[in-house]
Amino acid sequence: MIKATIIGGTGYVAGELIRLLLKHSYVEISAVFSRSNKNKFIHYVHPNLRKTKLIRFEEMNISKIFDSDIIFLCTPMKASLDIVGKISDQGIRIIDFSPAFRLKEKNKYKEYYGIEHPFPDLLKKFIYGIPELKEEIKNAEYVSNPGCMAISAILALFPIVKAGLIKGNVIIDSKMGSSGSGREKKTYLIHPDYANSIRAYKPVKHRHEAEIQQEIGEVDSEIKISMSAHSVNIVRGILSTIHCFLEKEIQIKDLWKIYRNFYSNKPFIRIVREEKGIYKYPDPKNLIGSNFCDLSFEIDHSKNKLVLLSALDNLIKGAAGNAVQCMNLMFNLKEEEGLDQIPIRPL
Amino acid sequence: MIKATIIGGTGYVAGELIRLLLKHSYVEISAVFSRSNKNKFIHYVHPNLRKTKLIRFEEMNISKIFDSDIIFLCTPMKASLDIVGKISDQGIRIIDFSPAFRLKEKNKYKEYYGIEHPFPDLLKKFIYGIPELKEEIKNAEYVSNPGCMAISAILALFPIVKAGLIKGNVIIDSKMGSSGSGREKKTYLIHPDYANSIRAYKPVKHRHEAEIQQEIGEVDSEIKISMSAHSVNIVRGILSTIHCFLEKEIQIKDLWKIYRNFYSNKPFIRIVREEKGIYKYPDPKNLIGSNFCDLSFEIDHSKNKLVLLSALDNLIKGAAGNAVQCMNLMFNLKEEEGLDQIPIRPL
Amino acid sequence: MIKATIIGGTGYVAGELIRLLLKHSYVEISAVFSRSNKNKFIHYVHPNLRKTKLIRFEEMNISKIFDSDIIFLCTPMKASLDIVGKISDQGIRIIDFSPAFRLKEKNKYKEYYGIEHPFPDLLKKFIYGIPELKEEIKNAEYVSNPGCMAISAILALFPIVKAGLIKGNVIIDSKMGSSGSGREKKTYLIHPDYANSIRAYKPVKHRHEAEIQQEIGEVDSEIKISMSAHSVNIVRGILSTIHCFLEKEIQIKDLWKIYRNFYSNKPFIRIVREEKGIYKYPDPKNLIGSNFCDLSFEIDHSKNKLVLLSALDNLIKGAAGNAVQCMNLMFNLKEEEGLDQIPIRPL
Amino acid sequence: MIKATIIGGTGYVAGELIRLLLKHSYVEISAVFSRSNKNKFIHYVHPNLRKTKLIRFEEMNISKIFDSDIIFLCTPMKASLDIVGKISDQGIRIIDFSPAFRLKEKNKYKEYYGIEHPFPDLLKKFIYGIPELKEEIKNAEYVSNPGCMAISAILALFPIVKAGLIKGNVIIDSKMGSSGSGREKKTYLIHPDYANSIRAYKPVKHRHEAEIQQEIGEVDSEIKISMSAHSVNIVRGILSTIHCFLEKEIQIKDLWKIYRNFYSNKPFIRIVREEKGIYKYPDPKNLIGSNFCDLSFEIDHSKNKLVLLSALDNLIKGAAGNAVQCMNLMFNLKEEEGLDQIPIRPL
Repeated sequence: MIKATIIGGTGYVAGELIRLLLKHSYVEISAVFSRSNKNKFIHYVHPNLRKTKLIRFEEMNISKIFDSDIIFLCTPMKASLDIVGKISDQGIRIIDFSPAFRLKEKNKYKEYYGIEHPFPDLLKKFIYGIPELKEEIKNAEYVSNPGCMAISAILALFPIVKAGLIKGNVIIDSKMGSSGSGREKKTYLIHPDYANSIRAYKPVKHRHEAEIQQEIGEVDSEIKISMSAHSVNIVRGILSTIHCFLEKEIQIKDLWKIYRNFYSNKPFIRIVREEKGIYKYPDPKNLIGSNFCDLSFEIDHSKNKLVLLSALDNLIKGAAGNAVQCMNLMFNLKEEEGLDQIPIRPL
Repeated sequence: MIKATIIGGTGYVAGELIRLLLKHSYVEISAVFSRSNKNKFIHYVHPNLRKTKLIRFEEMNISKIFDSDIIFLCTPMKASLDIVGKISDQGIRIIDFSPAFRLKEKNKYKEYYGIEHPFPDLLKKFIYGIPELKEEIKNAEYVSNPGCMAISAILALFPIVKAGLIKGNVIIDSKMGSSGSGREKKTYLIHPDYANSIRAYKPVKHRHEAEIQQEIGEVDSEIKISMSAHSVNIVRGILSTIHCFLEKEIQIKDLWKIYRNFYSNKPFIRIVREEKGIYKYPDPKNLIGSNFCDLSFEIDHSKNKLVLLSALDNLIKGAAGNAVQCMNLMFNLKEEEGLDQIPIRPL
Repeated sequence: MIKATIIGGTGYVAGELIRLLLKHSYVEISAVFSRSNKNKFIHYVHPNLRKTKLIRFEEMNISKIFDSDIIFLCTPMKASLDIVGKISDQGIRIIDFSPAFRLKEKNKYKEYYGIEHPFPDLLKKFIYGIPELKEEIKNAEYVSNPGCMAISAILALFPIVKAGLIKGNVIIDSKMGSSGSGREKKTYLIHPDYANSIRAYKPVKHRHEAEIQQEIGEVDSEIKISMSAHSVNIVRGILSTIHCFLEKEIQIKDLWKIYRNFYSNKPFIRIVREEKGIYKYPDPKNLIGSNFCDLSFEIDHSKNKLVLLSALDNLIKGAAGNAVQCMNLMFNLKEEEGLDQIPIRPL
Repeated sequence: MIKATIIGGTGYVAGELIRLLLKHSYVEISAVFSRSNKNKFIHYVHPNLRKTKLIRFEEMNISKIFDSDIIFLCTPMKASLDIVGKISDQGIRIIDFSPAFRLKEKNKYKEYYGIEHPFPDLLKKFIYGIPELKEEIKNAEYVSNPGCMAISAILALFPIVKAGLIKGNVIIDSKMGSSGSGREKKTYLIHPDYANSIRAYKPVKHRHEAEIQQEIGEVDSEIKISMSAHSVNIVRGILSTIHCFLEKEIQIKDLWKIYRNFYSNKPFIRIVREEKGIYKYPDPKNLIGSNFCDLSFEIDHSKNKLVLLSALDNLIKGAAGNAVQCMNLMFNLKEEEGLDQIPIRPL
């Protein structure tokens, strides 16, 4: 059994990660650390987990970390930096949910996060964890789990950028549920304030933009990514609408071919595009509870414009599920291990 | 493998039943019947099921029914009556989701449904399917799956009525999500009309009242059940608040003992009552996606009043999951088979 | 012009009060006090108020208070007690939204609030502010605005208790939106935690129970009130379902007569009961944005049971609107002055 | 008094129009036509209107139309075409909510609506009704009320296009509440299906695109408009995020100047842009119930990209309120007459 330790067990991502690992056939949870809730049962904070395994939160404990096969850092960037600084090069595998090691160039941390990165040498040791695109995860020691909106955009863009079909500016307009804002007591997040709003919380220079530019730019350095992030009145789910301009005329059937080929054998990618009916395009509603990412495309030939659509569950394929998928690969397990839940509907 | 056929495959309960059966280790779906959607893939109607097993809806076909080990009737009352009338006494097990065979006395169908029941002799052949309370399900040929609000109320009431602790009038005030109203194009159900409402859709004489009276009245014929049904602005989940009056003074610790003993060994009952924190009582939010029913109790000693709280997922423990639990017992499988999903949170 | 000062201007009730007073023909807002937001424009906190009158929050200032005709205390109980202790007997009219002066008997403060009331002599100087029931408001110097769930229950119960139609136990099951929980950063109130929940936050001994018992008990001391409070997934609105038992057989037409007579000439009471259609009973959705309280009733003759339904907008008829209505009467204005908004629908 | 007749009184826009006209000082509602609900009281369909004026729906009646000063067509396109065909050139003023007369070029009806327009000569007689931009409304006989998403986009774009600041492709990504989909019993619109979804219902070639291109193209024919329409989990409100590319470097303070000058004296335009706090940009939540359109802008200098944000209440500034504003101008009344409601918050 793989011994897994979770650091920062209070948040929503940690809750979902625990839920998934409790049912994983090859993983045993060694410890769940949370300073603020130490000694409490995990179901005190994650009430859905009642009557599963009785686990208590513990205070962080380095020796327990060294006794693990893998640690999951469900911590804010600063804490992730501190912990990785302490435990790197000890042979323990790490998956970090924070952005601390997502970007490869330290100056991008200055531009997007306003910080001087304390461990620039470690940046290249972390693999940017998109299992559908990164063979290297199989041999990775350290994985940086991508931003939830970034993963939705990159999975949609990669095949057509690879195929050289688009050029110039790419505009990503993402809509996300409230659970993506974390479990913090912020005024704008309380229900009376948040409910029924459409909040353009970062119209330009969203931090995930840097990740997307990095990953897409590696394939085609001419593409310029802009991203605008909105929060909408749902708890879970992301839809990214991606506006691109075509290099040359293509047809829907060409896109079908490109996406089908690129993602053949990928268990968590669904291409969703119906000519008729009411579920023609990806909608996060249709995949909540699963590790699926649903992709689609539409062309406006009159303007040579391509619109991509990408939906996922921000806490699963956008976080905990994707990390388990990475872990499976790192430990040479089947990619789908512990991730075969069918989406629940309606919710 | 148990061969299961689903009749009436378009609705939400059918969708959830298919989802659960697709992952059930001992069941194979033989056919899903739906006249309105025949020949379409099931994911055309249940888009969450895309990229699971490719199944097409078929038109109803009696020979296929006779080739099944069990049929699930996800049909309205009238259709259930017709079908059962045709196929009873053929050795095929049946679980019916409609109210067609829930009540044992035909005159109750007159009082609550305004109909003359066409097959009064069949009424006693159906077991009222609450697995936690009915040993007979193990040997049952026909099971009638209870109303979703009824099951929540009965599971809460049974232990204390059995213990002789309450008397006289019991008032059940149920709050239910929109998926309990079915998948029908009714004006009050369209989003702009339904959203943000609190709709007292049946303040008196709700049909589930008759079921609850029947089951509780068998234990204590002096108890008189009143039920008021409300729909609230969620898709899934039920909370029933049950107001009772105590026969004599008791303490919270006595209630703990009664419920713990009564439901020891019952895998899907959780007793939820914390002195502190924010998840003190059952809330459907904390069990969505699972077959759990969460129960609690509170006493107002100054009025000898007892309030019971009962929460469940109306499409799982209130419908598809409960039916699978019954099926497991009917086929001598482990009660939890295919039903061990941990609730997903937050949703 | 009536000079009005608002103390505690940050909360939702204060926001709605400012909105109503800005359009009131006979009121001028002298000052809005808020320590935490002093010097900021009110639209910084209440963004809907942008481009109305430019007002800045000020720090509390006793001389400004003494220059007012009326002050509205939108403060927590403790602050209300402090302020009233300082300014009473100075001829300034006061409307207090906190529960500090709602109950007439000081021992009830011990039972329900766990405090020793510091000014028991002031309790009788405050009129419990339900304009439909209290002639005394016209001559009142001090008014205590009732709890939002209390007002919904009392308006429904008063006519039939007065008519002597019910007996014994009365059970109030209230469902309220999140804005009733105030504008505070509590974990359970953040959107991912609150959304899609049905939270029985106070199944017994809710504080509003004491007010209802006080007001109803004055009419019939044999009636015993129990109240259970739930929060549901809407921002605004309350529905109280009130379960009563009838002293004798009566008919729906008798109830029509009683309610119509009792509330003839009352501009904000609507009796809502249709035999057909989809809007048969009160639903807060149909009155949001107005000062209406919608009332209805249903009988289950087989159990001599009466169910009352009462809906209102918790921030208007349950708070700011009701207070303006009281103020109108205190200053000898038309009851409806500034309160004639038609509900907005759909929302 | 202006005598107004409403044709097609059942929908949400008609409901809001009636609500606004009932409080308008210079308008008297002559008749509300609805075939499907004839003889019923309007509050049977619009339950918020109970206890306002007692009006019954009537069947359409041409003589009543000829007795009106203005008719509001709250009808689908086909019905609007029929009616206008019958009553044009009779001196009755018309405001049409359908798209029947929004486009000036008949071939655009072919491209976007797939129809041969039956009255191409009438197209130029209708003024496209954006009061902030069209002086001609004052003398107009016929006004075509714009599409709700179109009006949000045009109000945001007009000043900067006029100023020659942007070039090439403009991408409008609109998010709309469910009330924009009308009051029809469609499967995707029922609450269990619609709730918690983000539906990209028209990623390319949305019909409002044609209107926006028409109005913006008149100012700068080089601008190419693309629009993608999404429905999100709210009832009311629109946020349009508009992605543009700048012709040359400009600063935020320049944009402030341009928008302030352009919309000085315009009572319903608010420019919303704060450096700090949580309400930095337009959000429909902050203007529901009012005729405001909130506008903002943000620049990403690194990409010469400009993002505009525009929010409005789709049933008020996006429909009924805007129409009343047009009517006021047509009848030489003050623009704000009957439209001075302050937004209600929180909802």
